[in-house]
Amino acid sequence: MSDAVSPLASPFPALPAIAGVTPRIARAGYKAWGRCDLTYVELAEGTAVAGVFTRNLCCSSEVELGRRNVAQGRARALVVNAGNSNAFTGYRGREAVEQIMAQVADALGCPADEVFVSSTGVIGVPLPKDKARDGVAAALAAAPCTWEDAARTIGTTDTFPKGAMATALVDGRKVTLAAIIKGSGMIAPDMATMLGYVFTDCAIAPAYLQDLLGEANRRTFSCITVDSDTSTSDTVLAFATGAAGNAELSGPDSPGADAFAAALEDICRQLAHLVVKDGEGAQKFIAVSVSGAVSDDSARKVGLAIANSPLVKTAIAGEDANWGRVVMAVGKAGEPADRDRLSIGFGGIWAAREGQPLPDYDEAPVAAHLKGREVSIEVDLGLGTGRATVWTCDLTHGYISINADYRS
Amino acid sequence: MSDAVSPLASPFPALPAIAGVTPRIARAGYKAWGRCDLTYVELAEGTAVAGVFTRNLCCSSEVELGRRNVAQGRARALVVNAGNSNAFTGYRGREAVEQIMAQVADALGCPADEVFVSSTGVIGVPLPKDKARDGVAAALAAAPCTWEDAARTIGTTDTFPKGAMATALVDGRKVTLAAIIKGSGMIAPDMATMLGYVFTDCAIAPAYLQDLLGEANRRTFSCITVDSDTSTSDTVLAFATGAAGNAELSGPDSPGADAFAAALEDICRQLAHLVVKDGEGAQKFIAVSVSGAVSDDSARKVGLAIANSPLVKTAIAGEDANWGRVVMAVGKAGEPADRDRLSIGFGGIWAAREGQPLPDYDEAPVAAHLKGREVSIEVDLGLGTGRATVWTCDLTHGYISINADYRS
Repeated sequence: MSDAVSPLASPFPALPAIAGVTPRIARAGYKAWGRCDLTYVELAEGTAVAGVFTRNLCCSSEVELGRRNVAQGRARALVVNAGNSNAFTGYRGREAVEQIMAQVADALGCPADEVFVSSTGVIGVPLPKDKARDGVAAALAAAPCTWEDAARTIGTTDTFPKGAMATALVDGRKVTLAAIIKGSGMIAPDMATMLGYVFTDCAIAPAYLQDLLGEANRRTFSCITVDSDTSTSDTVLAFATGAAGNAELSGPDSPGADAFAAALEDICRQLAHLVVKDGEGAQKFIAVSVSGAVSDDSARKVGLAIANSPLVKTAIAGEDANWGRVVMAVGKAGEPADRDRLSIGFGGIWAAREGQPLPDYDEAPVAAHLKGREVSIEVDLGLGTGRATVWTCDLTHGYISINADYRS
Repeated sequence: MSDAVSPLASPFPALPAIAGVTPRIARAGYKAWGRCDLTYVELAEGTAVAGVFTRNLCCSSEVELGRRNVAQGRARALVVNAGNSNAFTGYRGREAVEQIMAQVADALGCPADEVFVSSTGVIGVPLPKDKARDGVAAALAAAPCTWEDAARTIGTTDTFPKGAMATALVDGRKVTLAAIIKGSGMIAPDMATMLGYVFTDCAIAPAYLQDLLGEANRRTFSCITVDSDTSTSDTVLAFATGAAGNAELSGPDSPGADAFAAALEDICRQLAHLVVKDGEGAQKFIAVSVSGAVSDDSARKVGLAIANSPLVKTAIAGEDANWGRVVMAVGKAGEPADRDRLSIGFGGIWAAREGQPLPDYDEAPVAAHLKGREVSIEVDLGLGTGRATVWTCDLTHGYISINADYRS
């Protein structure tokens, strides 16, 4: 963890234990830091698993194997290495992951493909097998830890530990979700990696959990951006132990399916916001809401074009209601847009409507809104009913300092 | 012009006069600056014209009308306003452009659609018609000026005036090309606009000039990026007076067509490089060469993904041979790539080959290369024969200072 905590940080919440889920931490020593860097989470037999992974074609072996393992639907353990992403390391990197899977499978007496591994940190250095072996052995023997300990241990240059919870009433039973995530700090020559893990006691079929996680992902993790760069290791996994005792959810018609889906999306949105709030150099949290698009997907693409525009992000950093830059970003998004129907606002106040600046536009309340930590940009394309909200942070000197002001 | 000149600036070259082309400048007073801000270039009767324009859907009336006018192929005059982009100004903005076209057409006795207008500067403020009228009248009456005067006058926050020349032997005649361009500085609440103008005495049919300009554009202006943001006003126009007296070029089989095409591409590449060298906050000029792609277009897209990556650009600013970030950018480009065939180098020295770091990689010569003003990144995808080079600059504190450290 970095010393300088993000101004957008929040205290770690009181997360409940999830029946059938036991986190432990240990020190593998992947980097020259004194803290724990290996997180091990043991899961009850029969735990359902679902996952979404980076689309980066240069993905790590962890991602390749995780994507393969998710297909069989069950998980007994999760291992997260911090300090080495093991990406772009060829067959040696893959051997290290397979060693960890075999070691944990041996200890638990389960198939190796029920062990999920993630790694985050430096790229291009094969994960050292000896350190991994000793670290896993230490974690297997360690006492259970708190969620906050686990959240700190999966972090690399994160400036604060991140967790979230949610509950739902499913089939007359209260089901609980707890989740941790890391992401968005970076250190030379590391790359940002977003690793998120959701744990629940809900009973749910793996295939349906995958459907719900994919849907939640489209509206949460796929709607955030810090700098438009996609990590080679991004991973979100959901584990469901079934200990809540509800009748297993198997599809949208199962009683309580809607409630669980809403809770899952809620916890994913919380996690996604926490990543943005720890964005490199972030001083402001920005929500970009696009309406009037030809489809929800089109609205999301326009929103991301705005949220990824360096000119929009620096304007917000400068607390400048520069709606011209928003116009520019809409126009370059490659989605249907009509300049003469376009409206732009900040903090719920329109600055321009239907292609022209408002004659009676009063910038004072907008300027006041932009001075806050949480800023909103509203765009109405005036074409259809598609809408989406995406989230990002501003682009500041802090980003440059973190990513340029060093030598490797 | 800004006071702080880019460290990548070069002196304005000695540009030749082009027969049939007469530049003049005047002061319309669009902004509270004392310098000239209106450029007028008179062209001989029968001058052929071709143009490429921004793809931004929220383009200015200047771009809309210019795109329309190019279709008829002839030009008598060019007017460039600096300090007001006239974009996103609705019907009032359009009326101002049509007024300028009519005023010049009246003076020259030509159709209004042979008058081309460009504007650059603040967005969302209709170009003031009275200032435009007086400015155009003053320019029509002014004495001819130098290319350097014209290059300075079309600039806004550019830190140096930019021009280039080229020659070719066509049909036994020497033809000459001279060009000016502005772009890449920005000031609140302005947007970067790239405006480029090529003038030649070559005789060439408008349709063929359009073909050649389009082709040159794909390998030059479409291969540069400063910050991935596409202006609403980007315009490149080529004007050919025919005064060199060569037999008119009408297609690739005309004698000398290849020589002229090469000269046109050469001058466009010079202009494109000058824009990058005046990129906001630029300290280093970066050439990204991609080979082994499935096609040239795919190579260009991979190159642009690298050149637009904030993490790659900050690494170069930090003189850090962070090839992991290049791997990441290749993987997110959305083009065919295979991690295990990918090679990355800097300054002609491979750091990683076929998916793995080179065991005997010596970073010392790479580190020395990265300390220079001109940096190259080489990527071999190992898939096919497609190749492309794109150009960009590094991302520095200067970019943030220019775009965030102000209040409008």
